[in-house]
Amino acid sequence: MRGPRFTPIVDALPPTVPFVGPEQMERDRGAPFVARLGANESVFGPSPEAVAAMQAAASETWKYGDSTSYDLRHALAEDLGVGPGNIVIGAGIDGLLDSTVRLMVGAGDQVVTSEGAYPTFNYHVAGYGGTLHKVPYRDDHEDPEALVAKAREVGAKLIYLANPDNPMGTWLEAGRVEEMIAALPEGCVLVLDEAYVEFAPEGSVPDADIEDPAVLRFRTFSKAHGMAGARVGYALGPAEVIAAYEKVRNHFGMNRTAQIGALAALRDRDWLAHVQGEVAAARDRIAAIARDNALEPLASATNFVTVDCGADGVFARKVLAALLARGIFVRMPFVAPEDRCIRISAGTPEMLDALASALPEALAEARGS
Amino acid sequence: MRGPRFTPIVDALPPTVPFVGPEQMERDRGAPFVARLGANESVFGPSPEAVAAMQAAASETWKYGDSTSYDLRHALAEDLGVGPGNIVIGAGIDGLLDSTVRLMVGAGDQVVTSEGAYPTFNYHVAGYGGTLHKVPYRDDHEDPEALVAKAREVGAKLIYLANPDNPMGTWLEAGRVEEMIAALPEGCVLVLDEAYVEFAPEGSVPDADIEDPAVLRFRTFSKAHGMAGARVGYALGPAEVIAAYEKVRNHFGMNRTAQIGALAALRDRDWLAHVQGEVAAARDRIAAIARDNALEPLASATNFVTVDCGADGVFARKVLAALLARGIFVRMPFVAPEDRCIRISAGTPEMLDALASALPEALAEARGS
Repeated sequence: MRGPRFTPIVDALPPTVPFVGPEQMERDRGAPFVARLGANESVFGPSPEAVAAMQAAASETWKYGDSTSYDLRHALAEDLGVGPGNIVIGAGIDGLLDSTVRLMVGAGDQVVTSEGAYPTFNYHVAGYGGTLHKVPYRDDHEDPEALVAKAREVGAKLIYLANPDNPMGTWLEAGRVEEMIAALPEGCVLVLDEAYVEFAPEGSVPDADIEDPAVLRFRTFSKAHGMAGARVGYALGPAEVIAAYEKVRNHFGMNRTAQIGALAALRDRDWLAHVQGEVAAARDRIAAIARDNALEPLASATNFVTVDCGADGVFARKVLAALLARGIFVRMPFVAPEDRCIRISAGTPEMLDALASALPEALAEARGS
Repeated sequence: MRGPRFTPIVDALPPTVPFVGPEQMERDRGAPFVARLGANESVFGPSPEAVAAMQAAASETWKYGDSTSYDLRHALAEDLGVGPGNIVIGAGIDGLLDSTVRLMVGAGDQVVTSEGAYPTFNYHVAGYGGTLHKVPYRDDHEDPEALVAKAREVGAKLIYLANPDNPMGTWLEAGRVEEMIAALPEGCVLVLDEAYVEFAPEGSVPDADIEDPAVLRFRTFSKAHGMAGARVGYALGPAEVIAAYEKVRNHFGMNRTAQIGALAALRDRDWLAHVQGEVAAARDRIAAIARDNALEPLASATNFVTVDCGADGVFARKVLAALLARGIFVRMPFVAPEDRCIRISAGTPEMLDALASALPEALAEARGS
């Protein structure tokens, strides 16, 4: 037959994608959203220093970016007190998760995550032919002991854990994660997603040895640094494992202006503190709006608040749909019992005003239908 | 053992990377280059409209890019007279080659390319466990008949062909490529890299059926559009094959500002014409400089000129090293007999002045040593 012969793994993959983006949803509904509160973006924007640096770099877009992201990598290393060889820069955590799974997972390999955790990680595991095993959340928190037990049972090569967690916004104490790391089975690596680490309370960031061969940490400029559209993330880990990314990554894949913007953002600590303050205020406001409507907000260590709608997933999906119909873009957990909640990103006061006025109507509609 | 278990494919991969970038070379030599003429970037820069659009978008970097690259994809489709479903946008041709190889190549699969053709394609084939078969160039041109014959012999899933060619700058007439397409064996897809298509002479761009399941074409904003640092490329092909990329690509991997800049660049036809004129003038100047030094420039259908240094690869490598030592960044083909040449990208008049003054010294040094 004329045409392509896909691999068996590709042939078996479903056509589903992890997320439908807000622009596609806006096109589908025929109107823009009033409040963009569904993707945990930082509506407070990037550092003005980063914006200025990116604007200044725009005319030099004719140059390929530095394939080693040298300046950014070295600045991060100095900030974090690790070696530049302990860091690899990639196109967001999503891109780095792709490379990470590719390095270790093929057909017949086992991977463990939580039921309802980050779907893009699952997408990559399926994409390389791995088999996913899921353990439930426990009281709206990921369950490290259950994750390790499952990994031991199935001989998993990877365990995924987000701390702070998405989509619940909850967090584990550092000691819990450190105990989990100590208990990892042989040949098993912890993929520790720390996308929201800049919002995490004290005592929740584990003190892991950077040269521990069993731990890889993932961080990003997409959340607290307000640069989701730039696609800059990084993985932290032992030099020997980080070196393996050189075998598979797209060496000239980084946007040059994004590299420059991320470096400027990293240096603007005042802006980071400003954003942390705005996020804390927005979380309080979202919690207040929830309580005003007799809903229960979960305590959050992130830039979003997950709100318990007080009933089941069917009801929460109705609330979500009614909010979307009113131009309020929010998302929600995928599986029970967490899907009794909706997830609302920190917004500007104006966006949260829009939420405050839409939520009572949305709840009434959901209850009435 | 504690730590990662890499896949057998990864374990077998060498630590080599396809290219060392100019920034790394500058760090290694301890001085910046005077003339950046080695990466076939467009020193004439991106469209001023694209620069303005990217500057205006910088403050909205907090938003993720549109995962479907809707606006850019639809504008390209209209321009090219194909459907939006015939196009997938990716992080440069490099990123799209990665996805393409991943879709079709696993351990034990065969792939055909030319000896000395684009190393990043080879990197991806090795990275997914494929076996590469290489056929030699013929008179400094890729040899489509030999590529097809080899593909038939080994049962290849992919053939790589760049037209116009890199690193030689030569091109094939459209009819040759159309005959090649007609002769493709069953189950074999032509990966037609058209990175330099905007510089190609009339009659060299094949008139292939967009719905031919055996042809995928790759184009980019990195060359004529002067946006290498943005990382925006696209693949053109039958809707059914293009749809398969949705199963493996990094859906939220595109830089938002780059999407916006590429759309503005696409619409600025005057700038494209300006760049084409500048490139034509620069090619003439490089050819004249070569002849002034009794070297033979090859006719070029790209934004670079490959210059025959008149002896073997050992000599050309000496010339290259002597140019680099004088701050002139150029590259050269990797294998004989094409490695008798050096490859010089179109430069500004000032950069080419620097080349003109360095080349006689470099040749003298290469001859004397």
